[in-house]
Amino acid sequence: MSALAGKIAENLNKIRATQPLIHNITNFVVMNFTANVLLASGASPVMAHADNEAEEMVEHAGALVLNIGTLTDAWVGAMIRAGRKASELGKPIILDPVGAGATSLRTNAARAILAQTWVSVIRGNTSEILSLAGQDSITKGVDATHALTDVSETAPLLARELGTTLAVTGPIDLVTDGRRSLIIEGGHSLMPRITGTGCAATALVGAFHAVDKDPVSAAATALAFFAVAGEAAGAQAQGPGSFVIHLLDALYSLSPEEVEARCRIRQG
Amino acid sequence: MSALAGKIAENLNKIRATQPLIHNITNFVVMNFTANVLLASGASPVMAHADNEAEEMVEHAGALVLNIGTLTDAWVGAMIRAGRKASELGKPIILDPVGAGATSLRTNAARAILAQTWVSVIRGNTSEILSLAGQDSITKGVDATHALTDVSETAPLLARELGTTLAVTGPIDLVTDGRRSLIIEGGHSLMPRITGTGCAATALVGAFHAVDKDPVSAAATALAFFAVAGEAAGAQAQGPGSFVIHLLDALYSLSPEEVEARCRIRQG
Amino acid sequence: MSALAGKIAENLNKIRATQPLIHNITNFVVMNFTANVLLASGASPVMAHADNEAEEMVEHAGALVLNIGTLTDAWVGAMIRAGRKASELGKPIILDPVGAGATSLRTNAARAILAQTWVSVIRGNTSEILSLAGQDSITKGVDATHALTDVSETAPLLARELGTTLAVTGPIDLVTDGRRSLIIEGGHSLMPRITGTGCAATALVGAFHAVDKDPVSAAATALAFFAVAGEAAGAQAQGPGSFVIHLLDALYSLSPEEVEARCRIRQG
Repeated sequence: MSALAGKIAENLNKIRATQPLIHNITNFVVMNFTANVLLASGASPVMAHADNEAEEMVEHAGALVLNIGTLTDAWVGAMIRAGRKASELGKPIILDPVGAGATSLRTNAARAILAQTWVSVIRGNTSEILSLAGQDSITKGVDATHALTDVSETAPLLARELGTTLAVTGPIDLVTDGRRSLIIEGGHSLMPRITGTGCAATALVGAFHAVDKDPVSAAATALAFFAVAGEAAGAQAQGPGSFVIHLLDALYSLSPEEVEARCRIRQG
Repeated sequence: MSALAGKIAENLNKIRATQPLIHNITNFVVMNFTANVLLASGASPVMAHADNEAEEMVEHAGALVLNIGTLTDAWVGAMIRAGRKASELGKPIILDPVGAGATSLRTNAARAILAQTWVSVIRGNTSEILSLAGQDSITKGVDATHALTDVSETAPLLARELGTTLAVTGPIDLVTDGRRSLIIEGGHSLMPRITGTGCAATALVGAFHAVDKDPVSAAATALAFFAVAGEAAGAQAQGPGSFVIHLLDALYSLSPEEVEARCRIRQG
Repeated sequence: MSALAGKIAENLNKIRATQPLIHNITNFVVMNFTANVLLASGASPVMAHADNEAEEMVEHAGALVLNIGTLTDAWVGAMIRAGRKASELGKPIILDPVGAGATSLRTNAARAILAQTWVSVIRGNTSEILSLAGQDSITKGVDATHALTDVSETAPLLARELGTTLAVTGPIDLVTDGRRSLIIEGGHSLMPRITGTGCAATALVGAFHAVDKDPVSAAATALAFFAVAGEAAGAQAQGPGSFVIHLLDALYSLSPEEVEARCRIRQG
């Protein structure tokens, strides 16, 4: 997959050169970390969730990141307004369905956003992604497998059903639009012991998508960059506190050539 | 107090084995740090404050943590709804009355939560805890002492008045339900120079209470664990920034045996 | 400018001795970092934004910091209520017009706060500050220069127009009330790669203003202290993650004498 490795370096160079503005409507827990991850990587974050501001802000942005953690109805409304504007303007929307499946507010919010805006990439874990499936054969197939180990078979079907690209993260990440599938390896076991690593990965997909119109390539290169930085951080960390620090330092310090040499992306 | 030292190791093992979900309705300042403290310790945090989500989320949780910093009326409503549901389900509620006594909104909110839900443990500093006392002999007794140095005499009376367990933290911590009282020593002088250490301690009481039904034992072992981690962090820190990092690393790395050996709990 | 260098040491000593309460109504992204910067420096932060609490809280405070990031109309209302109360009580108000000029919500909010309260210091970057100018010769003069390199000529005019002190930060900082102008050098190139450094600087102006009634001296000494701490942190950091940690450690550890010796303030 050397072509895509080259694409990582190209995308990272573009982000650092152009510092694309990434508009985040995201949850309270991860706002600070998300902003710092974007800044360390070279992008420019902005957070704006007011009903009477979100549409205006999205006009300045290179991508819109919608994250449904710590949700209320008012935020869902702002997300949909901003998302419609981004759809109109042809700007990529990345959805993080945090906790979808856990409560009806979150599941319904994710589905409403999907129904009313053009989501380019959904980044979530297996259960969040699968909660977005309808009451049809896909879900039944998933129920039948129980263990969901074979998300690599289910995800392409779901991507086609939803008409979007899925970025399913976990110990190994999968990116698929239903036709092309890519597997990304790397990262570190401390990543799930820190709040907001998934949300930060979603925001990075936004930064890469702002400079790369292909959702599959944008999502895969973003996740591979994050995985390389996670590996570098894990090699130095003594626990989750120092891991966060080394992760931000790595996102800032890793050269495009280092990332290209270390990333592990292969056909799914 | 070797029995309770053994209880710390037992509780910590249970948290790391079962990763109990701790539902926090907490303030904006400390959400990220609280989540990271819970994750580092082995628990699973979730934050959800929407009126139409809080009750549903609490069904999944092992404990509910209510923290009244950065409050508005809407949040008080969600706290009470979630708290009533937790009371119905017999799930432990831990209240952090941040700033009670400083404004009427906060004092009234803490009292409303106490009146309308079954709070198992209140974790606060001396002035926050004492602001919850009624206009009776206890308060007058407190006023009479002025210096409040003798919280160890007042707190058991107040615990009985409120029908709950009090965890009063400061240079030395006191846990009492009015019959049993325990003193916890340890910690570090940098802890009050970091925002959210009290709130994080409250969340840890939630994690310990999720695996230990006795509120006195749960609160005392949680605070003793935090104190041991604080001591370990303080031994390495060069200021409040590095203290936070070492604290998270210590919460993650300390073995139950180390915590048991180093903790200092005694009869109050 | 040795007189003002001595003023830094004096102000820092006062903050550490009296721990003034700084009331912040600020944005979600930076609340935690702002609180930690204030605590590390010796001040006591409080965040309170409820309509029915903000006025009561400001009575306890030594200064009020209003920051318009992640704004909604409800927050603007609370800021104006708190600001009016602070104006009545003669307490200094520091405004951070985050993103003013980027959306009409933010530009209008900043102008409404300026119109309805007595703002003592505005701390922002060049474009935020200039967005507050009216439709008159100043703005046209700015448009004419295009590059805005000469903010040192424009800012004093704008300070007089707005009747306040301006603290314009960037690679070099400028503080002016239209009569006196001071230039502060220092800091580090990593500062803009971390979210909230500007907001933290604003909060520090609040802490210094709580102990120093002269807005020019308060703002200049606060920014010079922050610049010295930034330089110290930058000398040790390996990226933006470790920079944050070293910055908090430096704010806590630097002695007033060290800050006095290293600060660089000169007449503008």
